[in-house]
Amino acid sequence: MKSKPRICLDMDEVIADTYAKFIQLYAEQFGRTPLPAEYHGKKIYDLPGAKGLRKRMYNEGFFRDLPVMDNAIEVVAELQENYDVWITTTATEFRNCIIDKYDWLGEHFPFIPWKNFVFCGDKSILRGDYMIDDKAKNLAPFPGKKILFTASHNVFETDFVRVDNWLEVRDYFRAETKQLHE
Amino acid sequence: MKSKPRICLDMDEVIADTYAKFIQLYAEQFGRTPLPAEYHGKKIYDLPGAKGLRKRMYNEGFFRDLPVMDNAIEVVAELQENYDVWITTTATEFRNCIIDKYDWLGEHFPFIPWKNFVFCGDKSILRGDYMIDDKAKNLAPFPGKKILFTASHNVFETDFVRVDNWLEVRDYFRAETKQLHE
Repeated sequence: MKSKPRICLDMDEVIADTYAKFIQLYAEQFGRTPLPAEYHGKKIYDLPGAKGLRKRMYNEGFFRDLPVMDNAIEVVAELQENYDVWITTTATEFRNCIIDKYDWLGEHFPFIPWKNFVFCGDKSILRGDYMIDDKAKNLAPFPGKKILFTASHNVFETDFVRVDNWLEVRDYFRAETKQLHE
Repeated sequence: MKSKPRICLDMDEVIADTYAKFIQLYAEQFGRTPLPAEYHGKKIYDLPGAKGLRKRMYNEGFFRDLPVMDNAIEVVAELQENYDVWITTTATEFRNCIIDKYDWLGEHFPFIPWKNFVFCGDKSILRGDYMIDDKAKNLAPFPGKKILFTASHNVFETDFVRVDNWLEVRDYFRAETKQLHE
């Protein structure tokens, strides 16, 4: 049997909603919710005076209670029928985040085996057939097909196939699967 | 400037002495130290009655106090002059080991940046120019040069270039470097 094509799937801003967490932390610090227009093309911690928020990622628990992106669970489960889905996440900058991410995956994506987890610091070491990521710098060196998942910080990026949400991921791979089986 | 060739370097039984720990645990349980002849071609937990020892790897702290392999620190530091050394370790089977391995690296190899750490479950996702590992199943799918680091369990393996210790690693790469610069 031919092995399934491998998908390298990012966590933050792709299956886990880190923006939601930063917006909440911003609101706690500044007493108001930032408007989408303010952070268009940016991270929340790129807003004036908000640089310190980035450091919260060092804290235990930061990554443990992130919301799951809409439709991510069902679509990843569907992808597994025809693809070998791996979680490839940048994690080693923040000592405490690795275990949080590990437990978060166990809670929300228990159907992805631990063999398919990669916690790394730089994704240029990975190979596979597809990568879904919100960062151009992760996609650029990847040897397979590159799919940019829209996040506020990457809206001006034009070098990659873009998907805006998980229903678009589903449609992209349904088309790929059809081609594979033709 | 041309980038340095990348080395994927394993931890257990290559830079960290897991055998030493298992021998100690065996001695605690059975009241005697196993003889090298007994575990020739085997893991310590493959010895009669010792299967339960493998489960200790799930425990917090198991990987934190492993001895460093002789000469590993100096030779890795020397390798960094001409190579981009990455730590690529199988870790995601055991939830608690990741943070132990992270802290162990910080203690013994503080000169390797977090960008170069990979904690994964299956090394077939990695690419690079060289891999140093004690497991044939990790080396087999690797697209670069494969170097088997001798451990008791792999003594009958004949498919790879073999090094018995870190001085042999040094000699192997000194010869490679000379070729690269010719």
